[in-house]
Amino acid sequence: MGLTIGVDIGGTKIAAGVVDEGGTILDTSQVPTPPTPEGVIEAIADVIRSVGEGSSADAVGIGAAGYVDDKRATVLFAPNIRWRHETLKDKIEQRVGMSVVVENDANAAAWGEYRFGAGAGHDDVVCVTLGTGLGGGIIIGGRLHRGRFGVAGEFGHLRVVPDGLLCGCGSQGCWEQYASGRALVRYARQRASATPENAELLLGLGDGTPEGIEGRHVSDAARAGDPVAIDSFRELARWAGAGLADLASLFDPSAFIVGGGVSDEGDLVLEPIRKSFRRWLVGGRHRPHAQVLAAQLGGRAGLVGAADLARQG
Amino acid sequence: MGLTIGVDIGGTKIAAGVVDEGGTILDTSQVPTPPTPEGVIEAIADVIRSVGEGSSADAVGIGAAGYVDDKRATVLFAPNIRWRHETLKDKIEQRVGMSVVVENDANAAAWGEYRFGAGAGHDDVVCVTLGTGLGGGIIIGGRLHRGRFGVAGEFGHLRVVPDGLLCGCGSQGCWEQYASGRALVRYARQRASATPENAELLLGLGDGTPEGIEGRHVSDAARAGDPVAIDSFRELARWAGAGLADLASLFDPSAFIVGGGVSDEGDLVLEPIRKSFRRWLVGGRHRPHAQVLAAQLGGRAGLVGAADLARQG
Amino acid sequence: MGLTIGVDIGGTKIAAGVVDEGGTILDTSQVPTPPTPEGVIEAIADVIRSVGEGSSADAVGIGAAGYVDDKRATVLFAPNIRWRHETLKDKIEQRVGMSVVVENDANAAAWGEYRFGAGAGHDDVVCVTLGTGLGGGIIIGGRLHRGRFGVAGEFGHLRVVPDGLLCGCGSQGCWEQYASGRALVRYARQRASATPENAELLLGLGDGTPEGIEGRHVSDAARAGDPVAIDSFRELARWAGAGLADLASLFDPSAFIVGGGVSDEGDLVLEPIRKSFRRWLVGGRHRPHAQVLAAQLGGRAGLVGAADLARQG
Amino acid sequence: MGLTIGVDIGGTKIAAGVVDEGGTILDTSQVPTPPTPEGVIEAIADVIRSVGEGSSADAVGIGAAGYVDDKRATVLFAPNIRWRHETLKDKIEQRVGMSVVVENDANAAAWGEYRFGAGAGHDDVVCVTLGTGLGGGIIIGGRLHRGRFGVAGEFGHLRVVPDGLLCGCGSQGCWEQYASGRALVRYARQRASATPENAELLLGLGDGTPEGIEGRHVSDAARAGDPVAIDSFRELARWAGAGLADLASLFDPSAFIVGGGVSDEGDLVLEPIRKSFRRWLVGGRHRPHAQVLAAQLGGRAGLVGAADLARQG
Repeated sequence: MGLTIGVDIGGTKIAAGVVDEGGTILDTSQVPTPPTPEGVIEAIADVIRSVGEGSSADAVGIGAAGYVDDKRATVLFAPNIRWRHETLKDKIEQRVGMSVVVENDANAAAWGEYRFGAGAGHDDVVCVTLGTGLGGGIIIGGRLHRGRFGVAGEFGHLRVVPDGLLCGCGSQGCWEQYASGRALVRYARQRASATPENAELLLGLGDGTPEGIEGRHVSDAARAGDPVAIDSFRELARWAGAGLADLASLFDPSAFIVGGGVSDEGDLVLEPIRKSFRRWLVGGRHRPHAQVLAAQLGGRAGLVGAADLARQG
Repeated sequence: MGLTIGVDIGGTKIAAGVVDEGGTILDTSQVPTPPTPEGVIEAIADVIRSVGEGSSADAVGIGAAGYVDDKRATVLFAPNIRWRHETLKDKIEQRVGMSVVVENDANAAAWGEYRFGAGAGHDDVVCVTLGTGLGGGIIIGGRLHRGRFGVAGEFGHLRVVPDGLLCGCGSQGCWEQYASGRALVRYARQRASATPENAELLLGLGDGTPEGIEGRHVSDAARAGDPVAIDSFRELARWAGAGLADLASLFDPSAFIVGGGVSDEGDLVLEPIRKSFRRWLVGGRHRPHAQVLAAQLGGRAGLVGAADLARQG
Repeated sequence: MGLTIGVDIGGTKIAAGVVDEGGTILDTSQVPTPPTPEGVIEAIADVIRSVGEGSSADAVGIGAAGYVDDKRATVLFAPNIRWRHETLKDKIEQRVGMSVVVENDANAAAWGEYRFGAGAGHDDVVCVTLGTGLGGGIIIGGRLHRGRFGVAGEFGHLRVVPDGLLCGCGSQGCWEQYASGRALVRYARQRASATPENAELLLGLGDGTPEGIEGRHVSDAARAGDPVAIDSFRELARWAGAGLADLASLFDPSAFIVGGGVSDEGDLVLEPIRKSFRRWLVGGRHRPHAQVLAAQLGGRAGLVGAADLARQG
Repeated sequence: MGLTIGVDIGGTKIAAGVVDEGGTILDTSQVPTPPTPEGVIEAIADVIRSVGEGSSADAVGIGAAGYVDDKRATVLFAPNIRWRHETLKDKIEQRVGMSVVVENDANAAAWGEYRFGAGAGHDDVVCVTLGTGLGGGIIIGGRLHRGRFGVAGEFGHLRVVPDGLLCGCGSQGCWEQYASGRALVRYARQRASATPENAELLLGLGDGTPEGIEGRHVSDAARAGDPVAIDSFRELARWAGAGLADLASLFDPSAFIVGGGVSDEGDLVLEPIRKSFRRWLVGGRHRPHAQVLAAQLGGRAGLVGAADLARQG
């Protein structure tokens, strides 16, 4: 099997690409994400047909945010798109005439990084995606660990603070409330509100109010030495690193791959995370340490990973 | 390969047994645990020779508390026995003339339950042992998940309370400080001290003081309706179930097996744990639920599991 | 000075009453709360004139939610009414021609209970109001403790969970997020969502969904034995009692008075709070225990207390 | 009344001093602290007689760690000296023939600072002593707030982390476990153990091991720029400042006075505490801020304060 098609369903757009065996994207197409659950299905079919036309691709992998069942066919629950027990594989196969594999989007991204990105040379890898929220994927012995019901790797909802912050999932204290792009902005706003005298640079990048602070402001201000921005990254790293230490106690991988928008900042965020990881790693003096690596594929990881999973069948 | 020998190194005694392919223990022998690191090695060899004499067993599996390396040969760190980088496999093979496999004791117990106990019919199982501390073992796709460096499944040191109770590992807030036999006794003592009027029965089982309360008193008093004892079990279950919910988000097994001394109390503790698990399971309405099963092999699980791992070798 | 007028500014209505020296309300008047900051001031003046007409009352006490300065004249910050540095005393005095005292509403209610309600016989009292949020008032040596800047007794924002729930004040983990009417409803909804099989009665009182659960449903269901409703009250009491134990370590009053809508449930909530208080009281075996009393004046406490503070001058 | 005698009962020595109305110590005497409860009483009497001989002092104030009753006569509970309901006032009056006032030692120190130290110009002051543990004292309207039963101001046992570190008092998560000299050393040891590469300077001041780190090493290393030592002070300040913010919500004083051995480091610790206080102060933009002042009397505060309380008598 040579070429396959990967699909990435985002909040604003749905992207598809023809991907070769080496993980290279040969061609892409995209459409805006429709507002209705049914509309999304038609849009997926459209974008696949659009990019697949004239190519020799004969299998499709789709990455979707939500719970995907153990047969990689049905989306059990996708809160953003409002799918419940959506038989996505069947519906897309009927529409495009190719075999389809559905996968959780963070799993697909993890697989992409494992196969073609930072995971080179590792067979036991845990991927953590620090985007707006926090997603995860697990590779054990060179295989994607999906869990018995297909819903493993939901790292974002690990409870790191009992009785902590409310999460969209209905629970409290979920890791993604403390280690994600959204958390970073909250840290910055809270600190800028309490001690504006330490956030002059940061506040100046937005409209001057704490509420006007956005993620890119925090990055820019941190690079320029703003104390509140630096402290916000440190807080994010404190929680991210402590969580990785937990995952090391559970999975014991040879490497962690940290991706997502937050990780685009590179060592500004990776170094504090590594330091925090060492700080909290249990038994750290008596065991080999997993590496903490930056992801390499950026926003392409999900699409490339989904395409490759279609190839794996 | 027919018979193998399993060894279980405990704090007070070292037990060995000849085990057949069905997990039945045919013969056993045991010696007191010597006080020195070197003494333990000789004692292990002695007890293997003692039980193996005259049997056709030709392989040995040893379960040891601590970090065991990825080759299942060296104990990296065993705080109780004070081993550091102890080449246990080599030393025992030289002494007994049989091939030896070393495994973490909680992993060995998990394997025993998976193969011959509560794990029947499940291929993705997470075992949690609530003994004095809290240990764990992971079976994925019918294989023991040891991690890249051999130290996966250290559930007891998952951080469930930031800045929480000090743990013997040097960290704070480790799960085993909140969900273990030791925790149960602490809960009972604290409550009996604060509100002795609700612990008359419980206090009467010991010497009348909170400090005199022991684990078995809490069980007996709970069965007899003592409010403090019941509340102590409820607190234990609160933490145990919440942790299982976390593990479900990460591993997504089809079943949890709960073993260890605390679980000997059966539904007195299992039912509250199940309830707490459902309470905290993220996305519980949109996914299949793992079963929460009581372990079946009791204290034999480690020995039987170690013996079987020698067979898998 | 015989009669005075007390004013209570609520979210939906503004009430005024003529009150005698014994704390009895002789006459009342009320108007809907206007939507604008300026409108509220006019409405306060109107309702005072309306109730005061023909009475011999010659002083006014006003209870307002928010920070009131040390001169009891200016409201520094009232988020709900959107007042900032509002010179309320001056404006009302100009409009009604009587001397005016402004006080924080929870302080006024505490004073009312101290003088005419549950506080009889106590000179050191801490009042905690469990309403939608959590408010407080402190009486030390028979005097209202206002603090140097007038903003003492903001119990609701005591941080009881580091990195905990977001609060409207911008901080996290504030006590009122865990011990208030709003918290009670959250507990009930979360539990009913996770384990609907234990909340059949509770769910049946609303529209059948967790989101449809309201405060009065939880009370009614708890009285009828619904497990989730009972557990929700227990959780509320856990936090309320632990907080009272903290306040005992700080203030060491002879009595706590627990008021607010939640306390209307009487022993359904008071008894678990007392139990939790004893559970968490530091050094409880070596010190006298403060009493935990139910408030007696209900919703009148603020109005009566404000009127009496006007008398005290 | 001109001269009075103050007594400070420490863990290693008992000191007495003749103090004038301006808080100046004219003469002192001290003896080692005896090991038995009865011995301590005789030693107190001896040291009073020794220093009082030939002076015109005719009243004694004694500061003792523990709960002192509302009559300032009986020590209800002093865990270190093992006193229970010890009628200290009577026993010492019989022995020395002067009137005696007994006070909690942290209260006495707070009073000393209020009268003769950093409290000048303030009538509402909250004192926090960061020594081995954490003690407190409250001045309201120029009077020491003792509470109804004499045990107010036990700040050290405010619960700042639910299910947190065990405290000697039997409770968990007490503030003094996170903000005290003992906590500082724990922070340093934990960090030096986890990341020794960042603690070379700090480790070099002791015996090279984390366990060898003592309080003065942390101070010295922090001044010299050691990253782990600086981070340890930052962590201490994080908790100290957050706690002060809580106390501001409750007491609303015009100033906090921070004393105890940790505060001897001056701005090394005071500045981060001030920053953390501002960070966590609820409603900080809408209210005047209390000052955070360094104590001025050092170890003399307790003795001087006790002497002055005898004068107030």
